[in-house]
Amino acid sequence: MSDLASKVLKGDPRSVARLISFAENNSSELADEMRVIHKHSGKAYVVGVTGVMGSGKSTLIFELARAYRKQGKKVGIIAIDPTSPFSGGALLGDRVRMTDLTMDDGVFIRSMGTRGMLGGLASAVYDAVEILDASGKDVVIIETVGVGQAEVDVVKIADTTLVVLVPGLGDSIQTIKAGIMEIADVFVVNKADRSGVEQVTAELESLIDISCIGKNRKIPIIKTTAKENKGINDLVDEIEKHKNYLKKTKVFESQRRKRYEAELVEIIRKRLMNFIFDESTFKEKVESMIDQISKKELDPYTAADEILGGILK
Amino acid sequence: MSDLASKVLKGDPRSVARLISFAENNSSELADEMRVIHKHSGKAYVVGVTGVMGSGKSTLIFELARAYRKQGKKVGIIAIDPTSPFSGGALLGDRVRMTDLTMDDGVFIRSMGTRGMLGGLASAVYDAVEILDASGKDVVIIETVGVGQAEVDVVKIADTTLVVLVPGLGDSIQTIKAGIMEIADVFVVNKADRSGVEQVTAELESLIDISCIGKNRKIPIIKTTAKENKGINDLVDEIEKHKNYLKKTKVFESQRRKRYEAELVEIIRKRLMNFIFDESTFKEKVESMIDQISKKELDPYTAADEILGGILK
Repeated sequence: MSDLASKVLKGDPRSVARLISFAENNSSELADEMRVIHKHSGKAYVVGVTGVMGSGKSTLIFELARAYRKQGKKVGIIAIDPTSPFSGGALLGDRVRMTDLTMDDGVFIRSMGTRGMLGGLASAVYDAVEILDASGKDVVIIETVGVGQAEVDVVKIADTTLVVLVPGLGDSIQTIKAGIMEIADVFVVNKADRSGVEQVTAELESLIDISCIGKNRKIPIIKTTAKENKGINDLVDEIEKHKNYLKKTKVFESQRRKRYEAELVEIIRKRLMNFIFDESTFKEKVESMIDQISKKELDPYTAADEILGGILK
Repeated sequence: MSDLASKVLKGDPRSVARLISFAENNSSELADEMRVIHKHSGKAYVVGVTGVMGSGKSTLIFELARAYRKQGKKVGIIAIDPTSPFSGGALLGDRVRMTDLTMDDGVFIRSMGTRGMLGGLASAVYDAVEILDASGKDVVIIETVGVGQAEVDVVKIADTTLVVLVPGLGDSIQTIKAGIMEIADVFVVNKADRSGVEQVTAELESLIDISCIGKNRKIPIIKTTAKENKGINDLVDEIEKHKNYLKKTKVFESQRRKRYEAELVEIIRKRLMNFIFDESTFKEKVESMIDQISKKELDPYTAADEILGGILK
């Protein structure tokens, strides 16, 4: 076993950080390390937290992490939202509050970029989850802005996904209608001290009533005021309940299978794209084809056929 | 030439709709049609409009389309935001206003889903742009929620990208910092009748001052109140100015080249993924590998190597 992987398995934070960087940069050393890591992962419970900006996701995650720490659990946090305080993108006040967590040995926080990766974000995040898992974290929390497809892709590997809403953001319910509904395991109405909380809850309830017809489980709604640490214990309980539900119904196994499928798909995607667009043999040919396409001497579909014909058996 | 492609080139809306559906469903007939379409595309000017929910993007696009119609230009609109009124996802009042456009022969509106496509959204949208272009539209407007990576991917093929902000949405500036800055050609501060418009403009200006150091062009800010049709002509002028700038500096050609590169990349990506995950010969092998990965008998990196070894020359 490599030195790096074995240090990760012992929970060394610098090694964890280094291996996640390998994943982000798609380093040539990544695969060999991940082959080792994979055998030792699968123990951590993965919680996805998604919601629009301004919904207070980060504060919620902050309090959630503190609650898990009180239970003696080790926590990993992966922030994909670039405006998250975990990513250093937020107001100073928020960042100062976070210090409480960043000083704690039992917590590992990592912010991951969303740009400049040729479709490689999902794969890097999946690797990061495996790495934190294998390093001994009991809970891994993934934070993401829940509107784009890439974000949904990332959250779909979570065991439990929280969708965070707030009163007064008129569009929030519409977003849910549009697709987030399917990924929500628990709804969190945060900033529940604000006016409009009853309205958003009622709207959510009627949505849940419609979408949960014929299903075994009704999506619960938890009200929180994360800033005042209110409702956090209820939320922790609800996540635990969902976990028990997953285990009892064996949905847990099928979800995990989907996670590994998503991992495999993303690794293959990443490798193929690297093969075609990074290998110098192809790069030249691809460049000249793009020139021809620009001049309308060639169309992209015919070009794609030619390239694929050249690499596929 | 196929019947369908020739009808598209004549501007027949039903044929345009049908061919876009082929793109969405990744139909086997798509490639042959697109080979024809490609030769006839490249004339339309492509405007990307991105901004968070609640920024009034759709109303802005509605007024922008009306302004172009007054100039006698034909307009295509592709709405990727599932909450857009163009997608039927909005309030009734908004949808009623849209009727004005939907009844106009010179306007083609298409809403495109963001889910259930294995990384195929970008490719389908690129095809839709080519199809509308070849069908004789002078301007093609792409509407997208500007936060996720998939959305940024989609907008990057636009000639001019508008980033829409509103006063009072505290997080909007932060989003820009995080990445949208690089794709913005023009900033639009919509709902400029609201209080806070000076603050958001000032914040934007200082951001622009920093990010445009050493660049030939400073990103302009246009204030609009789309609901009252205010500032729309200024916006049309600014898009025209940007177009002239692109043409004068030859950036236009290099941007278009990037667009065709993005198209090619997405077609290849789509075809490879189909090849591996839809072809029945592979499907079985992939399924059994995922089982092994779940049981930790195999790791996804080794599995990916095996699959790729089986298909690559």
